[in-house]
Amino acid sequence: MPVCGSVEYGEASAEVRAVYDDIMATRQTDYINNFWKALAHDPVLLRRTWENVKQVMAPGALDALTKEMLYVAVSASNQCPYCIASHTAAARKAGMTDSIFAELMAVVAMANATNRLASGYQVEIDDRFKPA
Amino acid sequence: MPVCGSVEYGEASAEVRAVYDDIMATRQTDYINNFWKALAHDPVLLRRTWENVKQVMAPGALDALTKEMLYVAVSASNQCPYCIASHTAAARKAGMTDSIFAELMAVVAMANATNRLASGYQVEIDDRFKPA
Amino acid sequence: MPVCGSVEYGEASAEVRAVYDDIMATRQTDYINNFWKALAHDPVLLRRTWENVKQVMAPGALDALTKEMLYVAVSASNQCPYCIASHTAAARKAGMTDSIFAELMAVVAMANATNRLASGYQVEIDDRFKPA
Amino acid sequence: MPVCGSVEYGEASAEVRAVYDDIMATRQTDYINNFWKALAHDPVLLRRTWENVKQVMAPGALDALTKEMLYVAVSASNQCPYCIASHTAAARKAGMTDSIFAELMAVVAMANATNRLASGYQVEIDDRFKPA
Amino acid sequence: MPVCGSVEYGEASAEVRAVYDDIMATRQTDYINNFWKALAHDPVLLRRTWENVKQVMAPGALDALTKEMLYVAVSASNQCPYCIASHTAAARKAGMTDSIFAELMAVVAMANATNRLASGYQVEIDDRFKPA
Amino acid sequence: MPVCGSVEYGEASAEVRAVYDDIMATRQTDYINNFWKALAHDPVLLRRTWENVKQVMAPGALDALTKEMLYVAVSASNQCPYCIASHTAAARKAGMTDSIFAELMAVVAMANATNRLASGYQVEIDDRFKPA
Repeated sequence: MPVCGSVEYGEASAEVRAVYDDIMATRQTDYINNFWKALAHDPVLLRRTWENVKQVMAPGALDALTKEMLYVAVSASNQCPYCIASHTAAARKAGMTDSIFAELMAVVAMANATNRLASGYQVEIDDRFKPA
Repeated sequence: MPVCGSVEYGEASAEVRAVYDDIMATRQTDYINNFWKALAHDPVLLRRTWENVKQVMAPGALDALTKEMLYVAVSASNQCPYCIASHTAAARKAGMTDSIFAELMAVVAMANATNRLASGYQVEIDDRFKPA
Repeated sequence: MPVCGSVEYGEASAEVRAVYDDIMATRQTDYINNFWKALAHDPVLLRRTWENVKQVMAPGALDALTKEMLYVAVSASNQCPYCIASHTAAARKAGMTDSIFAELMAVVAMANATNRLASGYQVEIDDRFKPA
Repeated sequence: MPVCGSVEYGEASAEVRAVYDDIMATRQTDYINNFWKALAHDPVLLRRTWENVKQVMAPGALDALTKEMLYVAVSASNQCPYCIASHTAAARKAGMTDSIFAELMAVVAMANATNRLASGYQVEIDDRFKPA
Repeated sequence: MPVCGSVEYGEASAEVRAVYDDIMATRQTDYINNFWKALAHDPVLLRRTWENVKQVMAPGALDALTKEMLYVAVSASNQCPYCIASHTAAARKAGMTDSIFAELMAVVAMANATNRLASGYQVEIDDRFKPA
Repeated sequence: MPVCGSVEYGEASAEVRAVYDDIMATRQTDYINNFWKALAHDPVLLRRTWENVKQVMAPGALDALTKEMLYVAVSASNQCPYCIASHTAAARKAGMTDSIFAELMAVVAMANATNRLASGYQVEIDDRFKPA
């Protein structure tokens, strides 16, 4: 069980149910995943988090697959098992193949490595890389 | 100065120069950035790191822009100023517009937020998200 | 089992038992949690860690609840499942309600998000924020 | 300069200016800090981020000082220089004394230490710490 | 199961089998651990990662035990359960005693603590610590 | 200036001076680095932190150089510029050559990379790696 319990649809208040309905409609699914049920003890937190996710993850200048891959890259760097699993699943749904996943992971691994070479060697930022 | 000094092209050994030449040829530039000059005190580390970067960042299942954006996402999550600056510059070169950057940053911010909501609430991974 | 085994009270040396006794007396409990039993293979590490925790977590300029919330905030940011669970439990004991927890998590999520917006956008520190 | 430039009040669109006005009114200041001016190239990102911060940081179950201290704790754990500086300044404004700061830092340091002892020793979560 | 499945020796391609054989020969074992079987869906990623690990972990200026301890220190700081477990086991094999492990963990805990004191207090780097 | 100011020897209280004297005697130097001067506004925090560092960094089962290298590995992984600089300097003093530093950095980079491959691929811990 998550910290403040898990709110199932059947026992949810109208306020929470409205968010659940919007999640299911937006994602074209009849499934509410554990993350949202954990936040639902606080309808304000639930609604704000969902509204943010909905806006941020909607295709725009970047498509849905790219956004999900970015989510996986961040979650893997941060060692968050829940978000790694859920967003890898979402990326799959958005079209991520095994080959794409392997390249995504290779970039994540490389970036995590060179981040520490750059800091450990105390490399100064090249003037040309500074935003003008 | 980086920890073990910075190796300029003019003073580089043949071994180091060969890597520098390959970097410049691959990236179609005549500029070697500080990162490589810091690693060059150890030609083995320099070569291995460059060979890895060259392989991993080459367009494949993912294009160059997506790979650079993933690099920025990881580097921003890890708070690495050097890699944020250098890979934001590289992403720009690969076509990243201001709008794309804003969406990239929005996803990175959101992922870093929900990573902590998921862990803080101790949310269990949904069975359907586990790789089969 | 933790790496070097778990030392139960009954099998503990006098040195370890003295620390266990102090933990139980300070916390007014008869329970020694797994963390301490894992460190107890090295009585010096056990004692130093406990003395530090005892001093740092004692109410002073900040009360016990605030200190436990800070502990949860750090542990959630670092993705440490053990410390998230144990300090969320401790914060509960110190009076954390569901509403407080929701606000705590909201701040943690927000801080983790804006930390990356600030670094990703390469925002310079305002002069007025620098300690004088 | 931040990545996409800095939007000053005088050159801001009506949309951006409305957010700036709300920031200044809410915080009772005539100063817009660099963070907001960096986000302002994208009015949607600016507005969403500000609305979130405004909601999350408003006093509720937790007071303003506690929220700012949590922000500092997270930012110090994540090594974000901008947010450390800006939220330490904000915490000062909300009443943080030197003594409170010292205790805050002591808890942050301790939590970061024991987070790694718990993970390094591979300590299992005690049953009694798991949310029921 | 890992994300793209697990490749057992019996079902592996010649390319993957060659890497597995080299892992077993280099480590003088007949066991391939889960990490490699997860990468093996992509033989290029598998080979590159193994070649890197083989080069980097070979005794050189630093012996095998020191390298494994450094691996554990990083993995514990990053909260990576898999690498903590696998490299603690490898360090054991390379001669790490309980006493060494306790000192290793004590340094890791201390470094994680003072990292945040230094950043939280906004301490400036002493001139004498800057690489000349 | 650090957050609560910097306490110079000449203006220090007897309590702070005693710690400064012990630092200089233990390290056989007449220099107090900025870190300690920043903590000194709170003599209790200063003393506790110094006592911990003194105990933990004293040669024991691990020698001084190994301990300093572990410190650098953690600090580079955490992106703490102050501790990277100060402990790289300390490791130099303890005998770290350029070759050793290059190998240290190579292990740090590799560990940071594979930490994310292990988590991103959701690799399960092999039974044989679990502490018995």
